[in-house]
Amino acid sequence: MISASLTDEFRSIVGNEWFLDAPEDLATYSYDAFWSEFRPDAVIVPGSTDEISKIMGVANRDRINIIPRGAGTNICGGSVARKGGIIIAFHRMNKILEIETESMCAVVQPGVVNADLQKEVAQYGLMYPPDPASMFVSTMGGNVALTAGGPRGVKYGVTRDYLLGLEVVLPSGEVIRTGGKTLKNVSGYDLTRLMCGSEGTLGIITEITVRLVPLAPARSTLQAIFSDLDDAAKTVSAIIGSGIVPTTLELIDRVVLDVIRDYGGAQFYEGAEALLLIEMDGEAVLVEGQGERIEKFCKEKGAVVVERASTPEEAEKLWQARRSVFGAVARLRPNCIVEDATVPVKRLPEIIRKIVELADKYRLKIGVLAHAGDGNLHPLIMTDLRDKEEMARVDKALEEMYEATIAMGGTLSGEHGIGIAKDRFMAMEFGQSAIELMRRIKRAFDPNNILNPGSFL
Amino acid sequence: MISASLTDEFRSIVGNEWFLDAPEDLATYSYDAFWSEFRPDAVIVPGSTDEISKIMGVANRDRINIIPRGAGTNICGGSVARKGGIIIAFHRMNKILEIETESMCAVVQPGVVNADLQKEVAQYGLMYPPDPASMFVSTMGGNVALTAGGPRGVKYGVTRDYLLGLEVVLPSGEVIRTGGKTLKNVSGYDLTRLMCGSEGTLGIITEITVRLVPLAPARSTLQAIFSDLDDAAKTVSAIIGSGIVPTTLELIDRVVLDVIRDYGGAQFYEGAEALLLIEMDGEAVLVEGQGERIEKFCKEKGAVVVERASTPEEAEKLWQARRSVFGAVARLRPNCIVEDATVPVKRLPEIIRKIVELADKYRLKIGVLAHAGDGNLHPLIMTDLRDKEEMARVDKALEEMYEATIAMGGTLSGEHGIGIAKDRFMAMEFGQSAIELMRRIKRAFDPNNILNPGSFL
Repeated sequence: MISASLTDEFRSIVGNEWFLDAPEDLATYSYDAFWSEFRPDAVIVPGSTDEISKIMGVANRDRINIIPRGAGTNICGGSVARKGGIIIAFHRMNKILEIETESMCAVVQPGVVNADLQKEVAQYGLMYPPDPASMFVSTMGGNVALTAGGPRGVKYGVTRDYLLGLEVVLPSGEVIRTGGKTLKNVSGYDLTRLMCGSEGTLGIITEITVRLVPLAPARSTLQAIFSDLDDAAKTVSAIIGSGIVPTTLELIDRVVLDVIRDYGGAQFYEGAEALLLIEMDGEAVLVEGQGERIEKFCKEKGAVVVERASTPEEAEKLWQARRSVFGAVARLRPNCIVEDATVPVKRLPEIIRKIVELADKYRLKIGVLAHAGDGNLHPLIMTDLRDKEEMARVDKALEEMYEATIAMGGTLSGEHGIGIAKDRFMAMEFGQSAIELMRRIKRAFDPNNILNPGSFL
Repeated sequence: MISASLTDEFRSIVGNEWFLDAPEDLATYSYDAFWSEFRPDAVIVPGSTDEISKIMGVANRDRINIIPRGAGTNICGGSVARKGGIIIAFHRMNKILEIETESMCAVVQPGVVNADLQKEVAQYGLMYPPDPASMFVSTMGGNVALTAGGPRGVKYGVTRDYLLGLEVVLPSGEVIRTGGKTLKNVSGYDLTRLMCGSEGTLGIITEITVRLVPLAPARSTLQAIFSDLDDAAKTVSAIIGSGIVPTTLELIDRVVLDVIRDYGGAQFYEGAEALLLIEMDGEAVLVEGQGERIEKFCKEKGAVVVERASTPEEAEKLWQARRSVFGAVARLRPNCIVEDATVPVKRLPEIIRKIVELADKYRLKIGVLAHAGDGNLHPLIMTDLRDKEEMARVDKALEEMYEATIAMGGTLSGEHGIGIAKDRFMAMEFGQSAIELMRRIKRAFDPNNILNPGSFL
């Protein structure tokens, strides 16, 4: 609970209308795209770095928990008030401040929606590569806090690879700047990347400078259907090993294909066990040739159907299956848990076999959607959170899946973050010394533990 | 001084022959490629992570300073015993442990020489992109500690962009692992990149996992001579703005061209004010077209001579001028200070003009060599360290140059690090809050301040 005098103090900083504590507001901000619910004590919608600095000063003085939140699309419970406190929302700080075409960078406020930035820079023939599935809703601040990835990651990498500089308000209220607008910068510790993926536990991101790249003039898209999952996995290896770097290399397994088909989405070859969606971008002369070579690989490795788009409309049609996945699985069972196990590319067939085995062992419906080109799997566990007995089986399957993932040299999270969704697994990936070191780093930033407490540390 | 009993303790950990304290050994390790000299108390050459862990345990217990050192090619004084202590050298830990062609990564010990890794992975059609000028000597551990860059940075980025995982011995002797072999990893704080560029102040890097990329099948190299420096700078902007991402885009100014010519290196057009060396790599069909377009840009922007290589031998000939720079300037004056000011690409002409102005104002010989494509300048100050009066002018010129760099949104260091060479300028780039935060991070790793103390913090 926030006292009346504190409430007044916060109201005087941001203005009356931007301090929210009506029950309906608190309800709205009590969950994100993960399934847990925690009611915050209040929600503040600041309009400037200066206001945030003042808010943090007060919060730090009185030990009030602060949880920064973008669009709340994260699926790790990274933006809920697990231990109570105040949510800071960024929809007023949503301006693109600068686009520098010559130096190829942009400066944005944290509340800018990823897709809005994409659209804006495209007018200058530029691209901001990270493309999380949430990009039409999720904000740049959230993208940085969670190191958002996306299908284009195979070729282009993730948010951290495009981050040049940040303005950050520390828990003390102090404002620091890290990095800048230069492509190269090695001055001092890399605070920019330490903030990236810190899930709102180290500081409040108030301004972001990102690198842009030239928008590719052409793309080549193709879809291949396999009647054997292993053939599809081998095709992934063959493509990656060939020296071609596709922009996107997505895999969808039979379980998910069946769900799409059953719910009236795209229709596929009857015996389809896996689908690969492959896209290249770059100069027309290049991607055309790459498309031909990849079509050949697919056929050699046993693809039963290969379709190559020759127009943007045809390409869009090929993307339909991939795009309809979440809608389709949402209709099958009340809930879908999207996991994020990631392995070295060559272990892909092995981890997929493990998942199939776990689904069978624990009598669960688990489909596999994978950014196969970078080994980033999204196992989709179709379940019902209200069914305690089934959830106990889900939990066991998850534990075994992550044990296998780590044993293969993989990680708990390729791009979704840890939050409260996977904090219990941290000790699988990190030894106690590394976890203790992270706790000391947390204290170096936030000695009173007011920023997103109860998250992964 | 290390006591006799401590000496015995260290000898028993690494074996007698790997603890060095003869005067000639101490002299050898008393400097790196920066100009300062500090005699260490001893040099230890460990053979394993386990030995390093034990060394650190003893050092931490008895508060003995430890300075990790690769090949000592850094030019920021990052590997000298400024406050005394023991140098740890890595030439015994020089093995490439694994090359995984399918997952496109390599695992190496810190003492592996960059060029040896390059050569080894090339056999599998792969490339490790960072190519610092020191690559034939410098080690992977040093490259990570300093975030080494290189001419290929325009297209490929720097060491941090290829780092997947590390094994690190903390000052306490604890061994931690960060990251792994996966291309995507967002579990916990990004300790991997925090270690990168930490200049030996946070932990001892004992194993490195890097990402590899396909070796480009073709390259296109060209050299353009301009009789006006501004024309050359505008050509750089035109190329970057055209959507072509060259692998390398180097600029050499008249001062340096004159030095090369005077010392019997390559000959250039008489009125040459600037030279651009431009290289693209990728599929043959692509780079050929890019080479043609860039040749056109150069001519349109006023290049007086453009030479395009059509064979690898011709390309090598074009690289000769660039490669001969350091040899040539070394013969002109007793010392050459290689600076590292970096600005957003569009400020390139402005910072170059500033440097020319400062050379004149302080009566100094300053040439400019620049990785122009990413705004990373290497002003070459040809001087004599023994001449105190001249050095006072050098120091003033440096201070003004970095003030201008920071005012343009630039940074103290694009790729060479801070060390003891530029620690006095840190407050120009960072506010006191950020510097204090870095000090707290340092303490979180190294509470007794035994690792490379006296470096940039």
